[in-house]
Amino acid sequence: MKLYVIGLGPGDDAMMTAEALRAIGDSDCIVGYGVYIDLIRHLTEGKEILMTPMKQELARCRMAVEAAASGKTVAMVSSGDAGIYGMAGLIYEVLAEYTDADVQVKVIPGITAACSAAAVLGAPLTHDFAVISLSDLLTPWENIEKRLRLAAEAGFVMAIYNPASKKRADYLKKACRIVSEHLPPHTPCGVVRNIGRAGQESAVLTLKELEEYPADMFTTVIIGNRTTKVIDGKLITPRGYRGVDGGE
Amino acid sequence: MKLYVIGLGPGDDAMMTAEALRAIGDSDCIVGYGVYIDLIRHLTEGKEILMTPMKQELARCRMAVEAAASGKTVAMVSSGDAGIYGMAGLIYEVLAEYTDADVQVKVIPGITAACSAAAVLGAPLTHDFAVISLSDLLTPWENIEKRLRLAAEAGFVMAIYNPASKKRADYLKKACRIVSEHLPPHTPCGVVRNIGRAGQESAVLTLKELEEYPADMFTTVIIGNRTTKVIDGKLITPRGYRGVDGGE
Ligand SMILES: C[S@@+](CC[C@H](N)C(=O)[O-])C[C@H]1O[C@@H](n2cnc3c(N)ncnc32)[C@H](O)[C@@H]1O
Ligand SMILES: C[S@@+](CC[C@H](N)C(=O)[O-])C[C@H]1O[C@@H](n2cnc3c(N)ncnc32)[C@H](O)[C@@H]1O
Repeated sequence: MKLYVIGLGPGDDAMMTAEALRAIGDSDCIVGYGVYIDLIRHLTEGKEILMTPMKQELARCRMAVEAAASGKTVAMVSSGDAGIYGMAGLIYEVLAEYTDADVQVKVIPGITAACSAAAVLGAPLTHDFAVISLSDLLTPWENIEKRLRLAAEAGFVMAIYNPASKKRADYLKKACRIVSEHLPPHTPCGVVRNIGRAGQESAVLTLKELEEYPADMFTTVIIGNRTTKVIDGKLITPRGYRGVDGGE
Repeated sequence: MKLYVIGLGPGDDAMMTAEALRAIGDSDCIVGYGVYIDLIRHLTEGKEILMTPMKQELARCRMAVEAAASGKTVAMVSSGDAGIYGMAGLIYEVLAEYTDADVQVKVIPGITAACSAAAVLGAPLTHDFAVISLSDLLTPWENIEKRLRLAAEAGFVMAIYNPASKKRADYLKKACRIVSEHLPPHTPCGVVRNIGRAGQESAVLTLKELEEYPADMFTTVIIGNRTTKVIDGKLITPRGYRGVDGGE
């Protein structure tokens, strides 16, 4: 029947929307990767829980679509925004396989890590920016390199997702070296770990220092552009309002 | 004392976070552009309201900082996310002028238009994307052109903010022509107007059709990349999971 694809925001209930809370409340069945289910365990009492291990995205989407097709109201949950490196796209693709199923999909947006990380660090995303994942599981590394290079050349501030994993310990360093072709070593950057979760920590540092930062898969990285600066420990990209007063 | 810089999300209360609602509730004084204050009028009873016309951003930020410095708890509100083409950066810059003021700033993130537009259209932002404003009030048009060109070359899906205003009626057309140097005319795109507000409307259309679309300042535009496709009327950028099953 109804399949909600829900972005939970970074982790803390207070950063979920009322719409997301209501959709979880309405659902008979919650589908998701274990870490995300754990974030909302207290909201799931009496509901059926369908979990799959990580890297079983396709199986998880089929499970969700089949549960909805069988007449249940289903919530598939992702961290952050469900549409950003999340499951929303795959749900639509899988749904197209089930031509007879009467399933209504509704995507409920959430606060994505770029926005929650930026709020912790100050205001680095006030101007044009690019969101880039360093995971090469689904994208050839050459494409990632090309995007990093062109984003730096274009002057985009960058929000970097999936900056590292056990197998890819040196990817952030490689990424820093690439953008360094266009940005000076003192370019202000920031990192935030475990946003809205136990153990949240953040730092403002230079691009040169970022090369050596031990990012993990729970870290979001912001790389500034040539106008980004540090004011009282906060990472700020000015929009150019000052003196120019105009246009919001 | 305390100065909250709050992102209200696209417009509907149900898309605000609990944290944003609580901060508004805690505040003595609400500062914002009239249209945003109107969105939350029902939450402001008994509170002082400080409004400025549009294009008075600097004055508005000074007003907010001064009210907080005088001992009030102040909420400065923006639509979407307060850090994305919003006031958060300017607040930190203005605050640095008031060296004696004891003001604690807290930025509370909100659902930005890229995410809320994407959820309406389907799942176009599942992979790397760039957020670009077409407003040249604060950025030379040459820079905007360069970013459009490099973002298209890099294969970023694009979320376009401020696609037009009365004075800039043909900017979206110009932007489409620029990205057309790298993208075929049938590239799937989408537009959403008045997200989460009365009169919400959306359309999926080709890049060629987008050239003629009469966007206004309440429209967010998504331009797909070479992999973006339309499935059952929804705009989807596949992440490449299919068959590859791996990495969330
Ligand atoms: C597969 S992506 C999922 C993104 C998510 N859908 C979103 O919109 O935020 C996983 C990456 O998102 C970032 N991320 C997600 N939640 C985070 C959090 N609570 N703290 C820090 N980074 C986070 C990290 O970069 C992580 O490697
Ligand atoms: C100055 S920017 C503010 C962006 C806002 N801070 C955010 O994060 O969404 C204004 C532009 O945001 C987009 N926008 C903001 N709210 C919108 C809504 N409710 N519906 C459609 N577009 C919106 C439009 O492109 C508009 O021209």
